[in-house]
Amino acid sequence: MDFYNELEKYKNIVENELKKVLNELDLPQQEIVESMRYSLLSGGKRLRPILLIKSCELFGGNIKSAIKLSIAMEMIHTYSLIHDDLPAMDDDDYRRGQLTNHKVYDESIAILAGDSLLNYAYELMIDEVIANDYSKKYVDAMNIIAKSSGYKGMIGGQVVDIISEKKQIDDKTLNFIHKYKTSKLIEASIIAGSIIGGANTQEINTLKKYSEYIGISFQIKDDILDIVGDKNILGKDIGSDIDKKKSTYVSIYGMERAKSDLNMYKEKAVNIMRKFESDESFFFIDLAEYLTKRVN
Amino acid sequence: MDFYNELEKYKNIVENELKKVLNELDLPQQEIVESMRYSLLSGGKRLRPILLIKSCELFGGNIKSAIKLSIAMEMIHTYSLIHDDLPAMDDDDYRRGQLTNHKVYDESIAILAGDSLLNYAYELMIDEVIANDYSKKYVDAMNIIAKSSGYKGMIGGQVVDIISEKKQIDDKTLNFIHKYKTSKLIEASIIAGSIIGGANTQEINTLKKYSEYIGISFQIKDDILDIVGDKNILGKDIGSDIDKKKSTYVSIYGMERAKSDLNMYKEKAVNIMRKFESDESFFFIDLAEYLTKRVN
Repeated sequence: MDFYNELEKYKNIVENELKKVLNELDLPQQEIVESMRYSLLSGGKRLRPILLIKSCELFGGNIKSAIKLSIAMEMIHTYSLIHDDLPAMDDDDYRRGQLTNHKVYDESIAILAGDSLLNYAYELMIDEVIANDYSKKYVDAMNIIAKSSGYKGMIGGQVVDIISEKKQIDDKTLNFIHKYKTSKLIEASIIAGSIIGGANTQEINTLKKYSEYIGISFQIKDDILDIVGDKNILGKDIGSDIDKKKSTYVSIYGMERAKSDLNMYKEKAVNIMRKFESDESFFFIDLAEYLTKRVN
Repeated sequence: MDFYNELEKYKNIVENELKKVLNELDLPQQEIVESMRYSLLSGGKRLRPILLIKSCELFGGNIKSAIKLSIAMEMIHTYSLIHDDLPAMDDDDYRRGQLTNHKVYDESIAILAGDSLLNYAYELMIDEVIANDYSKKYVDAMNIIAKSSGYKGMIGGQVVDIISEKKQIDDKTLNFIHKYKTSKLIEASIIAGSIIGGANTQEINTLKKYSEYIGISFQIKDDILDIVGDKNILGKDIGSDIDKKKSTYVSIYGMERAKSDLNMYKEKAVNIMRKFESDESFFFIDLAEYLTKRVN
């Protein structure tokens, strides 16, 4: 299938770029380099960096102008996973079928590996600003990424997720967690890419809507997979949300409603992208379908 | 004394600015706002932000143009302390006479509070870049701060500090830890301030030397205070380095040598600042003396 080839192609582009960083050897602080690399290169869909590059292309930009930011975005995502897996947080031993960072390295090293991946994301983004002659576009893109990652963005969602554990929560709280913990970085990837590609304000606002819908459907699908998914394909245990007494889209709305809402948000996302008259927009339409049908 | 008045004045300027941030109320993620504020406003010498502002003034800049970056710098310093105090790291219950962040809030919140202070530092710095019409100076200053904070900077020092615990280490390793864990952010504060103030390359290189010397003397003094300090004035237990079997400047070189080296580095720092013919340079000379004589 054409879409899957395209997805694989861009995933490889991202993977190859990720392999180029953190290649230092024999530093006194070598262990942190290895720990950062371990999590950064332990798989994943690379959804956020691919979205960033593709959004840049949607408006006429090229891969080269988006690749570094896309790597930075993946580092922010990866740091959040390392910290999320810590014993004091979700206390997970496995992710994507591999031992989590703190199970391979010390817990102290895992904390610092997360810290330094977050910091390194900014180091890379600032390098890009300078390499592009202090271009406003790159500053604006970095700004969107920064605002979406902090306590008013992704971290805000993580906080509410944690304080809601083992509690019955209402749909408003669940939507907050989904929007902030998951959708914010997806939206930031798409908007940052659009800015680098040269989108205007109206186009950016349209893309924001698309981001919102695929963000929600991504999370609903995650909640569904936690119940009906295949452990071996998912690379983690099924039913972990139930074990942790976590409220999910399924536990609040039921499986039927979860599936029909998933379809509704996917349709909304697809309809938005149909407005763009560009070859690149097909990728975004197919992506919305893919996120709904994925098995891991 | 004139110097102490000046120090107090600038400390108050920094404190007042710190009080202005993180004032949100009634957010769903309110707990993280309070946790960040708790550590940010729980005292400290405010050495790094004061150095940043003063370095800016040394080259003709004003307080207003440096204050936001100085706050961002204090946030990076504060996040590193919150994470350093965690059970998996130094496992400290008190800092500056007050309970550490994870003792007041959950360990999970403390991890996220550290993360979001680091991220918020970049949010503020990017805001400053934009507010100053995408000025190169602000990007360059942010770049220095970013590079000094990451795994090739401060975090690198923390990593070697942790893997060296309970081990006999040589003077080379100790110097690495001191240089990276402590001096890097002090140096970054001074250089970032100098850039904003308009220093030229030669002036920046001279300031780097000064930073290096006060960074080392700051750390030697810390190691001395851990043995001969007053618990009530320090706000933490004496002998904690010995309890943790940590190698220090005193354990490696002995108290006599530590004291004479402290004096030597102080003299070097003072001699460098004598070259600057500016009223502001006296502050830096007095500061080098102060760091040598301080009791906390």
